[in-house]
Amino acid sequence: MRSGQEPNRNGGLMTPSPRPRIQSQFQSTVSVQKNRRFNILILVFRFAAFCFSLASAMFMFTNSRGGSGSPQWYNFDAFRFVAIAAAIVALYSLFEIGASVWEISRGATVFPEVVQVWFDFSHDQVFAYMLLSADSAGTALARTLRERDTCTANNAFCVQSDISVALGFAGFMFLGFSSLLSGFRVICFILNGSRFHM
Amino acid sequence: MRSGQEPNRNGGLMTPSPRPRIQSQFQSTVSVQKNRRFNILILVFRFAAFCFSLASAMFMFTNSRGGSGSPQWYNFDAFRFVAIAAAIVALYSLFEIGASVWEISRGATVFPEVVQVWFDFSHDQVFAYMLLSADSAGTALARTLRERDTCTANNAFCVQSDISVALGFAGFMFLGFSSLLSGFRVICFILNGSRFHM
Repeated sequence: MRSGQEPNRNGGLMTPSPRPRIQSQFQSTVSVQKNRRFNILILVFRFAAFCFSLASAMFMFTNSRGGSGSPQWYNFDAFRFVAIAAAIVALYSLFEIGASVWEISRGATVFPEVVQVWFDFSHDQVFAYMLLSADSAGTALARTLRERDTCTANNAFCVQSDISVALGFAGFMFLGFSSLLSGFRVICFILNGSRFHM
Repeated sequence: MRSGQEPNRNGGLMTPSPRPRIQSQFQSTVSVQKNRRFNILILVFRFAAFCFSLASAMFMFTNSRGGSGSPQWYNFDAFRFVAIAAAIVALYSLFEIGASVWEISRGATVFPEVVQVWFDFSHDQVFAYMLLSADSAGTALARTLRERDTCTANNAFCVQSDISVALGFAGFMFLGFSSLLSGFRVICFILNGSRFHM
């Protein structure tokens, strides 16, 4: 930056030489391409988190058998927590997929850059904690249900709950990966003043 | 930095003027003091996390009534998880308290600085997830035990489990605060090349 304003040895102001500009344009192109690849990786993780958490929520929401004596998912606190946490994460992931696609196609973030990187990271963290908490509670409940006669009478209910909780854990894993990447973006932003990581 | 090496207008090399050095010494003193206050804050959070997780582990480990028919904590998976996770966090917090005291008294980290800041942050994150997961599972189990006749026959067992889980959540909260602060130290380290935040 300073070299363009420094006085020349011959007395006048130097005109900026073309070489640094070409180099910086080249670097900028490489940076944009790397950033694009990085964004596509985030998009893949977001999509995986969306699929797994949506599947988890669907499995739990449809987990009610007909008949008055059979167990319903909404009668168990932990299963309600699993269903609602998975639904919230699915909605959030859908929003983040939209934001990612927007960023890849237009090259700009939806919110101002500083808001966007901190928004992504903080929400990833909070929702990852929430989803893990819900699925841990769901696992503990599912295990105690196996010891009771609920599962011998209604095995399909227990199997469907187990699948829902397992899908939730898979969603948590991909949300965790997204959180690592968005944390990396926060650090890049703090370091360089932009989300580009070069 | 550059000003010390720049040629003087009179021709010779300037000797470094005393004012910047005094200013930087002053800034360094302020920085050391701020860092000390920051470390004391971390130490307080670590100590709180240690106390709560140790109490949680002790409450769970001693949660067995005499008599052959009464419930034991080690017969429940989720309660074993609560006890072991709390014990691990208590040990880790104890180590971190030692590291903090060392740093405050000697002004240097136990490991090399780059290892220390990343070690603290990563372990805070992993153990916070683990403790939350354990206590969520413990909560779900404690709630289902209330519905069964376990708690009417052995109310003390259930109350002690509830207290242990609640103490575990308090420990998680303080571990989360420590994690925020150690994350801040990581960012400072990346920004400045030192854990000092100025």
